[in-house]
Amino acid sequence: MTDALYGAIEAGGTKFRIAVGTSPDLIADTTIPTTTPDETIGASIEFLEHYAGQLKAVGIASFGPLDLDPSSATYGSIIRTPKPGWTGTPFRELITDALGVPVAIDVDVGGAAIGEWTWGAARGLDTFIYMTVGTGVGGGIFAGGRIHHGMGHPELGHIAVAREPDDDFAGHCPFHGACFEGMAAGPAISARWGERVTDLVDRPEVWDLEARYIAQALRTLTYVVAPQRIIVGGGVNRNEGLLGLVRDKLSDQLAGYGTNPVVDSDLTDYVVSPEFGQDAGLVGAIALAAGLDH
Amino acid sequence: MTDALYGAIEAGGTKFRIAVGTSPDLIADTTIPTTTPDETIGASIEFLEHYAGQLKAVGIASFGPLDLDPSSATYGSIIRTPKPGWTGTPFRELITDALGVPVAIDVDVGGAAIGEWTWGAARGLDTFIYMTVGTGVGGGIFAGGRIHHGMGHPELGHIAVAREPDDDFAGHCPFHGACFEGMAAGPAISARWGERVTDLVDRPEVWDLEARYIAQALRTLTYVVAPQRIIVGGGVNRNEGLLGLVRDKLSDQLAGYGTNPVVDSDLTDYVVSPEFGQDAGLVGAIALAAGLDH
Repeated sequence: MTDALYGAIEAGGTKFRIAVGTSPDLIADTTIPTTTPDETIGASIEFLEHYAGQLKAVGIASFGPLDLDPSSATYGSIIRTPKPGWTGTPFRELITDALGVPVAIDVDVGGAAIGEWTWGAARGLDTFIYMTVGTGVGGGIFAGGRIHHGMGHPELGHIAVAREPDDDFAGHCPFHGACFEGMAAGPAISARWGERVTDLVDRPEVWDLEARYIAQALRTLTYVVAPQRIIVGGGVNRNEGLLGLVRDKLSDQLAGYGTNPVVDSDLTDYVVSPEFGQDAGLVGAIALAAGLDH
Repeated sequence: MTDALYGAIEAGGTKFRIAVGTSPDLIADTTIPTTTPDETIGASIEFLEHYAGQLKAVGIASFGPLDLDPSSATYGSIIRTPKPGWTGTPFRELITDALGVPVAIDVDVGGAAIGEWTWGAARGLDTFIYMTVGTGVGGGIFAGGRIHHGMGHPELGHIAVAREPDDDFAGHCPFHGACFEGMAAGPAISARWGERVTDLVDRPEVWDLEARYIAQALRTLTYVVAPQRIIVGGGVNRNEGLLGLVRDKLSDQLAGYGTNPVVDSDLTDYVVSPEFGQDAGLVGAIALAAGLDH
């Protein structure tokens, strides 16, 4: 007898990772460049077809925006992305049709949130946030034991932040200028300081300011969502000590106010790193597939 | 045969309103001043006892903060309020014990949100926000067909906003200075312009600035919660035309960005007034009671 497996697709803007497994310990995986939908989704299907007899379900954690309304005729499609050729791709349907198994789809950060909830830093929680701060800002919200979508899906990068008093950077978001992403994502850091982020690692003033903007976003999310935990991943969190700084600044900013008991804690268990880091999307896709199977 | 009724208590900081009914058309109601828990809750019980044979359930929409964790030993109690004598009052338990019927409790804005969802401006919606901007800022979030609490409950007043370029007001929140409430609630408006809000009605620059701050908060909430609608009530919305201004500013600020289809609309159906205005809390309490009865 062969064991059942889940298929996983982490669809990124520059590469796809495809894997099979039943847990975060993947049994097989491969990485291919993102070119055209035909070619890249075709190659993903080809990889998964090797396990056709064992596949029980497939999970997709994809770049967005996606149509995530299950009642929509285009559910599981990619919508109006600037990525040439991909707008309107019926991603979920293509995989379902080719493999004949149930397919779950979510945005990359939504998938990553479910992965952390199933096996990682958010196990057992009812309400938490998974946020990445890197080239852009993304985030998934888990509320009342399930992923929250609303209309479309959350876009945590574009919330308002107050300009820090010692910062005169105009902001880097093409839509909103000085929104959170426009002030705190990697390209904003580079543009503000005139150097690549990797060359700024030893400049404490860079990370002190960065921590204050991240803390502003986490304060807003604390007061809107009232989560039990906020997981902060993405490129900027590779800077050792950043989350410690973020906790200090967030504690200052919350100023003990609110009904969430975390406001009186040292925030060590509240602001945490993801458990799966680079593999968050792939593990999330496995978790999405596993979620279908019950 | 006598018809079944629901009891409703809207508990405010200065007055309690108590009513019975089965819908927003109340059958009887009374208003009493808020003094001590013994006296005020006692009088509420006395009013409701007249209908003891008919009461099927009671709903409470109360000032907070409240313990809203159903698994807590102090579920339904008022927690650390500055209001003398009320901290620790087991509000829900007192009503349950006196009347022997199921009792539902939520914060005032949570109750009002449920009232609007059951009979008002949010009928049939899955995800929406109810926000009041008045003496303070409060808000309830309805997500995935139910009221969202998280840990404690949302505190929408204390989210971050960017200072508007033509505004040098320091901010009026004792905890966060220039947070949304500190820049946009009634006391902030008065402090900024040096006059009572009622004397500022004919000053367009006051309401232009106010609309921009409210729009910032709605932009943040749009990107975090991805709601289908945002209901804006409270004292400031008594200014005719304010919501129209808010829609214009919000449209500018969203700049067409996001997966929520409202970003491409004129926002007329997105940013709306509550249907129940002054009665929101009482109608909400009836709705809370009705929600128990199925």
